Amino acid sequence: MDLHDLIKSLAEKNNNKIIMLVSDGIGGMPMTPGGKTELETADTPNLDTLAKIGVQGMSLPIKPGITPGSGPGHLGLFGYDPLKYVIGRGALEAAGIGFACGPNDVAVRCNFCTVDASGKITDRRAGRIPSGESAEVVKTLRAVKIPGIEIFVEPVKEHRFVVIFRGEGLGGNVADTDPQVTGVLPLDPVAHDDAAKKTAEVAKEFFNQAKKILACQPKANCLTMRGFAKRPHLPGYEELYGLKAAAIAVYPMYKGLASLVGMDVVGTPSTLEEEIDVLHKIYQDYDFFFVHFKYTDSRGEDGDFNAKVKMIEELDKVIPRIMELKPACLVITGDHSTPAKMASHSFHPVPTLLVSDLARTDACQSYGETQAICGGLGHFEAMYLMSLAMGHAGRFAKFGA
Amino acid sequence: MDLHDLIKSLAEKNNNKIIMLVSDGIGGMPMTPGGKTELETADTPNLDTLAKIGVQGMSLPIKPGITPGSGPGHLGLFGYDPLKYVIGRGALEAAGIGFACGPNDVAVRCNFCTVDASGKITDRRAGRIPSGESAEVVKTLRAVKIPGIEIFVEPVKEHRFVVIFRGEGLGGNVADTDPQVTGVLPLDPVAHDDAAKKTAEVAKEFFNQAKKILACQPKANCLTMRGFAKRPHLPGYEELYGLKAAAIAVYPMYKGLASLVGMDVVGTPSTLEEEIDVLHKIYQDYDFFFVHFKYTDSRGEDGDFNAKVKMIEELDKVIPRIMELKPACLVITGDHSTPAKMASHSFHPVPTLLVSDLARTDACQSYGETQAICGGLGHFEAMYLMSLAMGHAGRFAKFGA
Repeated sequence: MDLHDLIKSLAEKNNNKIIMLVSDGIGGMPMTPGGKTELETADTPNLDTLAKIGVQGMSLPIKPGITPGSGPGHLGLFGYDPLKYVIGRGALEAAGIGFACGPNDVAVRCNFCTVDASGKITDRRAGRIPSGESAEVVKTLRAVKIPGIEIFVEPVKEHRFVVIFRGEGLGGNVADTDPQVTGVLPLDPVAHDDAAKKTAEVAKEFFNQAKKILACQPKANCLTMRGFAKRPHLPGYEELYGLKAAAIAVYPMYKGLASLVGMDVVGTPSTLEEEIDVLHKIYQDYDFFFVHFKYTDSRGEDGDFNAKVKMIEELDKVIPRIMELKPACLVITGDHSTPAKMASHSFHPVPTLLVSDLARTDACQSYGETQAICGGLGHFEAMYLMSLAMGHAGRFAKFGA
Repeated sequence: MDLHDLIKSLAEKNNNKIIMLVSDGIGGMPMTPGGKTELETADTPNLDTLAKIGVQGMSLPIKPGITPGSGPGHLGLFGYDPLKYVIGRGALEAAGIGFACGPNDVAVRCNFCTVDASGKITDRRAGRIPSGESAEVVKTLRAVKIPGIEIFVEPVKEHRFVVIFRGEGLGGNVADTDPQVTGVLPLDPVAHDDAAKKTAEVAKEFFNQAKKILACQPKANCLTMRGFAKRPHLPGYEELYGLKAAAIAVYPMYKGLASLVGMDVVGTPSTLEEEIDVLHKIYQDYDFFFVHFKYTDSRGEDGDFNAKVKMIEELDKVIPRIMELKPACLVITGDHSTPAKMASHSFHPVPTLLVSDLARTDACQSYGETQAICGGLGHFEAMYLMSLAMGHAGRFAKFGA
């Protein structure tokens, strides 16, 4: 019996609600050995109060030493083994712009490139054509028509865009057409298995039509296609946990990831305060709420320790409004650490705070990395966090008699 | 190489004895956040002395957030992955009355029910007929005879009883005959695979004969059959660990579970003191001793914090008599937590104390949940506890050169 079979067999429906507040990249590092991290430096009276009545632990996003991207980081938090459920690059890129791939979709990351008169690639990134200009060129490709296939063409950033082919019998296992070098022709999209043959043909036809449309474009007269991928087959939140789940996020990437696991993406907030407004508004309509706060990660990525501290203090300010709702279980965590000292995602485990009437309190007196090391939840892989939340929310039956 | 292959390849026979003292449901919770648990409240001078010379840790019965029943909880303690070795309901019910199923047995949980003149079920539980009366009716079913099959019919409680069919070629995969609703006939026992065809026929014949016997019973004139199951195929303690193992318990359930893994059930103690008497008496005859203390769980299930504290103090009193025996390794743990606050089994990890000359002592000064969080054994799945005991008892060879 695997973890998901166990979860499905034990999940019970009731009115106990779970809120998962994900402060992206919240885990940090001291700037000098033995110093305080961003979280420990921040003035967080509300989070510290929760630390006294809740239980902490360390969430390991993937495996020791492994730094996750946002995709695997969130899949883990959502309760999926990120080494088993791998989101293909195309599907991740689609998720990143908030495009919810369906079961009949194959998503492809595309790059504009430039080619010479003989069709050989001269610049694999079309001079990193500015996003505004690129988006206009992307839209011209919507003129491509292939019988029986619905096609979506969406800009991403600079020379990057996404194409989604929607239709019956489209496998995802197609080779990249980007040869990775200049001076050669783009490769043909080759099917790696029978299920992908139709996709390869469709891609080839798309390429031929697109090339004609782009011929007159001075900055981006051709394209390459990479990371063909179907959406991963993820059992949804309703099926797995019996949870009607809502996602509240500002950025498209997190809305896209949440939609992959069957959460409803609700509202169009543009600040954390507005996200909490949405949470209050929909609270009676759902069982589970994923609330995503981006800026702890952003300021960490900037390498700005003090600015990240301020963002954590912003997070602290909304805690009373969340606690007003009296969730059966509140989890506060991150999908990974983003220490300002590293100015990037890192492999460090993530201090995680769980508040519930069923929490066995520990000795922790404040929310932070050093305290979480000796928290009652111990050190656990992120993929078990949802089970901890379900247990603490009283939504699991007993296993066996 | 899986865990059991590893264990088998390393287990060594010597005279180093292991005692596993299981205080059922010993883990608890503070009644108010930040307060003391039952174990932390109890006056336990002997256990606290052991905490200073031993090493503690947190045993996770199954997986984070999962609450175990007694069956999976004990299988984990005994060193078996409780998600791999699942005890079917019938086999567990048989274990629960101390009936040791053999390899040719299929055990079935049966319910007395009542049916109307047309044979349709009117009460699926026969009015929860009192246990004393029910046991008398159960005995009448011992008149059923099926050629080539040995049949055991044993009362459990109220309307519940167990039937064990013993014979060659009896598979366990047979559908329940309880339709789960009233106003319809009991279902036929249908085989789910070829191996279970003979069992289904035997069950049908049992049902037909039993129905005739029961026809004159006013309170329980029919029966349904559920949870057909063979005993799980568990490698025994001798095979796995090279241990001659004894189980000392008061309650049938724990005797039954111990017998499933090949332990000898020894003595008929009715108190903890008598269990320790048995332990002393048989100490030279075995290598491993499972001693089960039930009442920490019982008082937790009652929701009686103070009574559970008292039971822990009872447990503490027998510690000197155990230590007199100077076991190479003493483990004190529980199969799960039963916080009085929840009045039920829970998912919380179990504070576990190990005493051995080979223990690397930690900073713990008393036995309890908050101390165990930072104990030297760390947080580990219960299925690894037997390996820890074997290692600390000096009964494992080195792995590799």
